[in-house]
Amino acid sequence: MTIEIEQHSVQLSSIAVSDTHGEDSPYFAGWKAYDEDPYNESNNPSGVIQMGLAENQVSFDLLEKYVEQHSEASDWGKKNGISTFRENALFQDYHGLETFRKAMASFMEKIRGGRAKFDPARVVLTAGATAANELLTFILANPGDALLIPTPYYPGFDRDLRWRTGVKIVPVHCDSTTDFRITPQALEEAYNKAQAQNIKVRGVLMTNPSNPLGAAIEQSVLEEILDFVTRKNIHLISDEIYSGSVFSSNEFVSVAEILHARNYKDAERVHIVYSLSKDLGLPGFRVGTIYSYNDKVVTTARRMSSFSLVSSQTQHLLASMLSDTKFTENYIKTNRERLRKRNDFIIEGLRKCGIECLKGNAGLFCWMNLSPFLDAPTREGELSIWNSFLHEVKLNISPGSSCHCSEPGWFRVCFANMSQQTLEVALKRIHDFMEKRRMQRCPLSSN
Amino acid sequence: MTIEIEQHSVQLSSIAVSDTHGEDSPYFAGWKAYDEDPYNESNNPSGVIQMGLAENQVSFDLLEKYVEQHSEASDWGKKNGISTFRENALFQDYHGLETFRKAMASFMEKIRGGRAKFDPARVVLTAGATAANELLTFILANPGDALLIPTPYYPGFDRDLRWRTGVKIVPVHCDSTTDFRITPQALEEAYNKAQAQNIKVRGVLMTNPSNPLGAAIEQSVLEEILDFVTRKNIHLISDEIYSGSVFSSNEFVSVAEILHARNYKDAERVHIVYSLSKDLGLPGFRVGTIYSYNDKVVTTARRMSSFSLVSSQTQHLLASMLSDTKFTENYIKTNRERLRKRNDFIIEGLRKCGIECLKGNAGLFCWMNLSPFLDAPTREGELSIWNSFLHEVKLNISPGSSCHCSEPGWFRVCFANMSQQTLEVALKRIHDFMEKRRMQRCPLSSN
Repeated sequence: MTIEIEQHSVQLSSIAVSDTHGEDSPYFAGWKAYDEDPYNESNNPSGVIQMGLAENQVSFDLLEKYVEQHSEASDWGKKNGISTFRENALFQDYHGLETFRKAMASFMEKIRGGRAKFDPARVVLTAGATAANELLTFILANPGDALLIPTPYYPGFDRDLRWRTGVKIVPVHCDSTTDFRITPQALEEAYNKAQAQNIKVRGVLMTNPSNPLGAAIEQSVLEEILDFVTRKNIHLISDEIYSGSVFSSNEFVSVAEILHARNYKDAERVHIVYSLSKDLGLPGFRVGTIYSYNDKVVTTARRMSSFSLVSSQTQHLLASMLSDTKFTENYIKTNRERLRKRNDFIIEGLRKCGIECLKGNAGLFCWMNLSPFLDAPTREGELSIWNSFLHEVKLNISPGSSCHCSEPGWFRVCFANMSQQTLEVALKRIHDFMEKRRMQRCPLSSN
Repeated sequence: MTIEIEQHSVQLSSIAVSDTHGEDSPYFAGWKAYDEDPYNESNNPSGVIQMGLAENQVSFDLLEKYVEQHSEASDWGKKNGISTFRENALFQDYHGLETFRKAMASFMEKIRGGRAKFDPARVVLTAGATAANELLTFILANPGDALLIPTPYYPGFDRDLRWRTGVKIVPVHCDSTTDFRITPQALEEAYNKAQAQNIKVRGVLMTNPSNPLGAAIEQSVLEEILDFVTRKNIHLISDEIYSGSVFSSNEFVSVAEILHARNYKDAERVHIVYSLSKDLGLPGFRVGTIYSYNDKVVTTARRMSSFSLVSSQTQHLLASMLSDTKFTENYIKTNRERLRKRNDFIIEGLRKCGIECLKGNAGLFCWMNLSPFLDAPTREGELSIWNSFLHEVKLNISPGSSCHCSEPGWFRVCFANMSQQTLEVALKRIHDFMEKRRMQRCPLSSN
């Protein structure tokens, strides 16, 4: 007699087959290789360098300086005779701390150069963007329904959006001929494909700026997507968790700005996801948010956030940090500059190795094109060179196939989770590998 | 053209009809009345006293003293040259901080007087018990399946366990003739009822100590429940979030102890839920845990906890607090004593008013029997006297019907979310109300 563990563990294993995070996936193999032999400048200089982790460490010193200089944000002082510890420890209202919601709304405005307004009353807090995206999927779709997601997309969506909701993902295939631009034709095609299979499409989910492309979506494309969802009468989820990691504020247009320009016509079908994990580099603190223009979604999401609330201790700290205008303005500016510098450095370094990347303007990674170097223009060809990168070059990068990229040979390469020195080591290794490869293929000596 | 918001908001409104937390519910009316006119000793001495909130404030001074004396737990010092801020902010591993998991396991052992062992490797962290219970439901049952829950039960389960999972609750009716003891007959009856409706029963969920009864489940009853789930080959979820709020360690038997005595035979069907919201009074910090004896459930729950992680900042603070043996031992002891004193005080006070309560030994509330005073032995009669308590006595208490109690006239009265003085005011008001009532029914003057 064995007891049954139901659906979700079973589903887990059935998903695992195609799951980009499953134990047979490159994702898993790459992390395993890194975990077993992690690079360290002094202890393990020939170890694997982790370039598969979209983590922002380039501006951490600014945060550290802030908490050092503002111990009141972490300490438990008294306010009107009541200790802030007591006040916070007991605070479990799913609305969240008002001071924090205000600070969050204002931070989101700042990131968008003040070109969009956010109402704190519409800010719903969740324990990270993972929870936010799942929560919206629960609200907007029934089991068996689908969301359209332009490719390449963040591999975690396959698990996060589908696992517990029973909702499907229908990929919208974009390709390099248009720089992976999302076209109305591709959207229409995916929509029709779902319809032909009798699957109800509930919305489009896009990440802007895109992970893994490292590029913001152009305004004209955004307008087309908004027109598309309006025409089909479906929802639009805009995951903007990298909006503060665009190298220049002007290069990013949020759907919030478009709605503003359109006088919020049809805005109730639009929902923005944000988090502090990427732009501020605080993934451990689990702070995400849903900003919906739809009252009913705001109300439902807030109730549903009971399953996924943010620690009041953390809200307290971040309310203080984000309402410090001087700090946030300097942080946003400095962080953008540093990310741009990193990006320029790696792009230039790769170019010197003969490798091109998609022209990007955002994010903690670049989208590297190794397609000219594949033995065969197939997924196998892609995984073969990925394997060489992992075991010979000793770099863990993410193959495009894990992001459902429709063309083989593209890779996401993270550059913000390491020091400049480590990045230089990584580039040197790539340089040597490409040199060696060239030598093997076209040896100068002709015997 | 209206856009559709799907299932879960629709479901929300359809649940709302019978939802004990819905806008038509006594729960909602009681909170509204309190919010509009909250009691305050100096500013609003005739306001509504909140006795519907299971919050523990009686030992808060001990926590405050701890954080005051241990600023290193909240501050961001350096460890091996790396700031703990950096280390924590970046830490998003769903295993949780090892130090915290160890401290949590050890705290759970201490609460059980060392009579049960907990392996840190089986501790899965979640953002509160709400998330933990939902997560287990997701894992153990399919939509349409059911969990058996003995009545009276925590009203929030109707929402937490059903809303997103699509799982049903089949009540196991217990009554006052056996002091609301869970009997094999009642379990069998509920099971058969589900079967007759073609509903697959996946498990029993019990709260031990019981909310709202304020009493721990006796060992013999626990043994019977364990035998029942074994016989039916189903799961057992034991929600033990009040295990540290039993007035004496000896009066509580955890299912963990029974399993230990049985040499962990059949343990893989048992899953314990715990949290720091009640025993430590830290609901704002969102710390819950699943402790499962089933490897597959541990693995799946850990992966699924990505939707509901605990802030690493909060893990850091609590790892420090809970691994301080001197602190935890004193806290557990003192908290028990204070809760017992509170309980004795209110029980004795109510007795003087002619009101009896179920004999309890745990929790932040007592289970008050007003059935002798109902105008009619019906739900209407119960809500009528509840209404008098809310609007005349100005106390917000929870009617048993909101807990699916099968008999009218029982109420949950919380006593740990207020000062001793406020509790005295509440008792004085009840006293006056009962006196006035007696006078009206049996006036001494006979004209």
